[in-house]
This record gives sequence, C-alpha cells and structure tokens, in this order.
Amino acid sequence: MTADSREDARWLAAAASLATRARPISRPNPGVGAIIVKQGKVVARGWTRATGRPHAEAVALDAAGKAARGGTLYVTLEPCAHESPRGPACADLVSASGLSRVVIGCMDPDPRTAGLGLERIRAAGIAADHLPSPACEESLSGYLVSKRLGRPEVTLKLAMSLDGCIALQSGESQWITGAQARAHTHAMRARADAILVGGGTLRADAPRLDVRLPGLELRSPERWVLTGGKAPAGWYALPSPEAIAGMDGVQYLFVEGGAGAASSFLRAGLVDRLLIYRAPILVGGQPAVRDFGLASLASAHGQWRITERRQLGSDTLEVYSRIPCSQE
Amino acid sequence: MTADSREDARWLAAAASLATRARPISRPNPGVGAIIVKQGKVVARGWTRATGRPHAEAVALDAAGKAARGGTLYVTLEPCAHESPRGPACADLVSASGLSRVVIGCMDPDPRTAGLGLERIRAAGIAADHLPSPACEESLSGYLVSKRLGRPEVTLKLAMSLDGCIALQSGESQWITGAQARAHTHAMRARADAILVGGGTLRADAPRLDVRLPGLELRSPERWVLTGGKAPAGWYALPSPEAIAGMDGVQYLFVEGGAGAASSFLRAGLVDRLLIYRAPILVGGQPAVRDFGLASLASAHGQWRITERRQLGSDTLEVYSRIPCSQE
Repeated sequence: MTADSREDARWLAAAASLATRARPISRPNPGVGAIIVKQGKVVARGWTRATGRPHAEAVALDAAGKAARGGTLYVTLEPCAHESPRGPACADLVSASGLSRVVIGCMDPDPRTAGLGLERIRAAGIAADHLPSPACEESLSGYLVSKRLGRPEVTLKLAMSLDGCIALQSGESQWITGAQARAHTHAMRARADAILVGGGTLRADAPRLDVRLPGLELRSPERWVLTGGKAPAGWYALPSPEAIAGMDGVQYLFVEGGAGAASSFLRAGLVDRLLIYRAPILVGGQPAVRDFGLASLASAHGQWRITERRQLGSDTLEVYSRIPCSQE
Repeated sequence: MTADSREDARWLAAAASLATRARPISRPNPGVGAIIVKQGKVVARGWTRATGRPHAEAVALDAAGKAARGGTLYVTLEPCAHESPRGPACADLVSASGLSRVVIGCMDPDPRTAGLGLERIRAAGIAADHLPSPACEESLSGYLVSKRLGRPEVTLKLAMSLDGCIALQSGESQWITGAQARAHTHAMRARADAILVGGGTLRADAPRLDVRLPGLELRSPERWVLTGGKAPAGWYALPSPEAIAGMDGVQYLFVEGGAGAASSFLRAGLVDRLLIYRAPILVGGQPAVRDFGLASLASAHGQWRITERRQLGSDTLEVYSRIPCSQE
C-alpha cells in the first residue's frame, strides 16, 4: 500500500464513521457516508437522510456547491446508477459535479448499479476507483448480507457471567450485567431494524425491548418473537430462524435471547456476529447457550474472530465476527 | 507518595520478581527475594534456595561481601528473628552487614519474627522501614494465606469456551483451549505445591497432572483427588474442601476441575483466585461450574476483581482475585 492509498483508506474510514449516523433511520436504504476533500481539507460531508433520501452523495454535493470542483469524493458505497421517482441517480449527480476524482469503499451488489455507477462516472471523464475498505464493508454489513444472502445480518447478544450463565437455577436474572452494559445494549438496539427474543423469554420476562435512551426513543426497532404460535399485540412471529429470509426490509436483526433462541440460531448457522457482555461474577446457574448440535470440538474452532473488546464499568464487552467458510 | 518512596516501591517490586524464582522449590520456606542497592546500582541479588536455605538475605549478603557496606537492602519479607539448626537468623546477619538501610515489603506474620526482625535491625543502628508493597504481598500470597488463615491459598483453574463449557454434551473435552494455554497451565502447576481434581475427572480423564515443560519436570507438585473414598497409588485423598487446612506444608493449591470440584470449593467459599482460560468457541455443552448454592445475583457481585488479562494464541487468560469481605 502506497502513502497515497493509505491516505485514501483513512478518508474512506472517516466516511464509514459518518455512515453510522445514517443507520437505521435511512431505512429502507443503506446508510452511506460521503466526504468531499480538496487539498487535504474537508469541503463537505453527507450521509443518507431519514427514509433514504437524499442520498449521502447528494447531501455532500449540495453542501459543497461550486467548491466541489476539482475535489475528491470519498464514498462508502458505489453511487447508484438507477433513477427513481424519489430522486436522481447519484452517478449522474457526480458526473455533473466538476469533481476530479471519486474513491469508492464498497461496490454495490444491487444489480441496478453493480459496477454501472463506477462506469458512468468514468465515462464522464472523472478518475474513479474502487479501493476495498474493511471499514466501509463493516458499516454496510447488514445491507451487504441482505443483498448477497437474501436475509438480514444476525447479531446474537449474550449477557452472561464468567461461567456463561444468564440466570440462577431459580430463574432470577436481574441483573447479571451493570447499568453501563445495559445502556450499551439500548444503543445497539437503536441500530437494529428488528429485535427478536425466544418464546420462553417473552413469557418469563415480558421484555419491552425498546430503546430507553434520551433522544433515541423513536429508533425502537420492530419486535419479533421466535414462536410456532401467534405473537402478542405489537409483536411479529417468526416460526423458525430460517424464516428470517422473509423479514421484509430488515437488514439488521438483533437476537437478544434467551438460551433457546440463541441455540436455535446457532444450530441453523444463522449467527454472523456475537456481542458478549460478561460480568465478573460466578453463578453456577442456567447457561446462555444450550446444546445446538455441535458434532465435535474440532468443528467449534476457527469459527469466530474477536474484533473488539472494551470495558463497560466492571463488565467486559467482546464482539466476535464469524470467520467466513472457505466454501463461501 | 514521594519520588523516593516510588523508587523504593520499584526496587521492592524487582525483589518480588526475583522471589518467583524461589517458589516452589524453597518449600517449606516462603520464596523471598532480596536486592542490595548502592547509589542506584544493584550490588547483589538473592532468593531463597531449594529446601529453604540459605535465605534470600544470606545469599545476597554473601554475594555482596564488603560491597554491602553503606548499601540498602530491599527484601520482600521481614528478615527472620529466630535462629534455627539450619542457619542463622537473617536479622543478625543484616545487623552485622554494614548496610545503612533496609526496606521491607511485607511483615512476617510468623510469631517468631512478627516485628522482632525489624526491631533487631533498628537496634543495630540501621535505618529500617516497612513499606507495604502489593507486589511483595502477591509474591508471598500462599505463605501469607497459610499463616493468617491456617490453610493453603486456593487457585481455581477454568479452561472453557465463550459460553462457559468444558466439554460437549457427549463428554468430549479435548481440546477446548490451544497449545499455548495448555503450556501456561503447566507453568502454573510448576508453581503450586499441590494440584487437585475431582473424583469424576480422575476417573474420566485419568490426568497425569505433571509438569511437562523442559527443565521443570522435577517441580511436579503433589497430586490430590477430592473423594470420600481412597486415592489411587501416587495420589492423596481430600475428603472435603474444608480438609485443605490439614494439607501439611501446602501453601499453594491449584484446583484443576472438573465442574464438581470447582463447585465444591466455591460452595465452601474456599477459592482465592480464578485462572480463566477462554477459547473463542461456542459449545453448548457441559458447564465449567455447577450450582454452588448462590442465594441471589446480588450476592454474586463484588466478589472478584480482575488483576490480569493476556492473550495466549487465540485464547484469553484472565486472572481474578477475590475481593476481601469487609468482615475480614
């Protein structure tokens, strides 16, 4: 990697960081971030607005005005090539902008764009490149999973003791983790399109599963319960983990437990990310994960890679991503 | 803390680090470290030799010879005040050494010394002080616990998955953790006086529980099994956790599992330190810790403080110390 491409990678990471402001209220559109840079200085920034319009590129170009001329646009996702009744194609806006360069962190798997956006910009005489960016891919993870695999990205939350318990044998479960970890969970809910619990957890705890953080109450996602029966009012029923393919418009699914739901999703191989909140206590109680049909210890290894660890009060948060199989 | 006392604390920590070379072959004596410093330079070092003699101070003073004159002795434990057929009292050696200053990291709870060593050195006209040192206390933890509580210090090892399992439901348990974590366990065994497993683990796994590290084979500790019955040849039987008070000469006890032994010691409140090796896998199998009679979640909190975290290959090692009760 040259010094120039390292610089490009840093700008793309900054754009990815902006994109987190867009999710999830950009639904049904992906949350995209864009930065226009000229001579090492930021000219304008943008991210996808609520309900998906205007797009990030349009916001940044509008903010830049004539100052965009000769600048470089860093954008997390390939600019769209398809017009819609809701707005112009970003590839056309970019082509007419006077920008001299475009750097794209992630190509769009949507067949209406899929390389056509990049092509159209190049055809307008602008130097445009795809520089694969892990930060951009991460910021678009749910969108990419839903386009590639036809289902939401699944994050499994486990809030447990050092010995992997979520409750005493008696069922007492409040509280394993502390206030900071629970507030962090609310922030994670605010970034999801839908949250799911198992039927047992719904009956036992009747969780509200809303976002109790000041200013974020309106971001409360859809509430789903894993059940073969009917869902209570205000909830949706998911008959099986495999049925997530039919969760319309849901790109980010947050599975909150309990052990039955966790094990069902693990058994189905439908967990992409683990969010583990671990309290410094021993419990000797009910496990966070039940038998999910693991055939051998050898097959358990090499599945998960830690991507983040941080302290939340006396609790530890660890994030693990599934390591893609070589078959995929 | 002044700059001088910070400097003193650093030398004491260095002496504590030397002391780890002494354990456990200094048995039955505590493993002590000593450093003689003059004008900011190390003149001599010493640590307790095999079988406990000569003591650390004697080794350091012998190495220093006349160069000890005018120097400062940093020693992890108060020099002994009692002569024995096995050697002279260190307080007398120190008094006759020409040292101008002595700094002690930890007072000796042994009633034959308990302040008398410090007094005798001061009576000889040497400036002597006790500067309480967490590093020195840590290096003497098993000795201090055995003197204060009349039982060995107990370290419980748990080698488990992210979800707190030590085996599949089928019983398959090899391997949860990787080669680096297992080698680290061997190094921890080498520092223990005795290792214990539960009866079930002994029957199921027939563990060797020896130290398979080059050069350390001779440090293999006594092997104990938690059982109401008889121990096999080469093993000792412990009828209950409380019976550790009668483990003659054992200051450091390493409890290796399984879940039954772990839970018995936790139920008895006889675990001082947790050594948790955690592999980045999910198992959904047999738990590392069974019900140990925890009455409420509230009572589980505030018991354990993390003192170390490090990576061993893809596994994580965490060390937790029990937070002393306010009653103690």
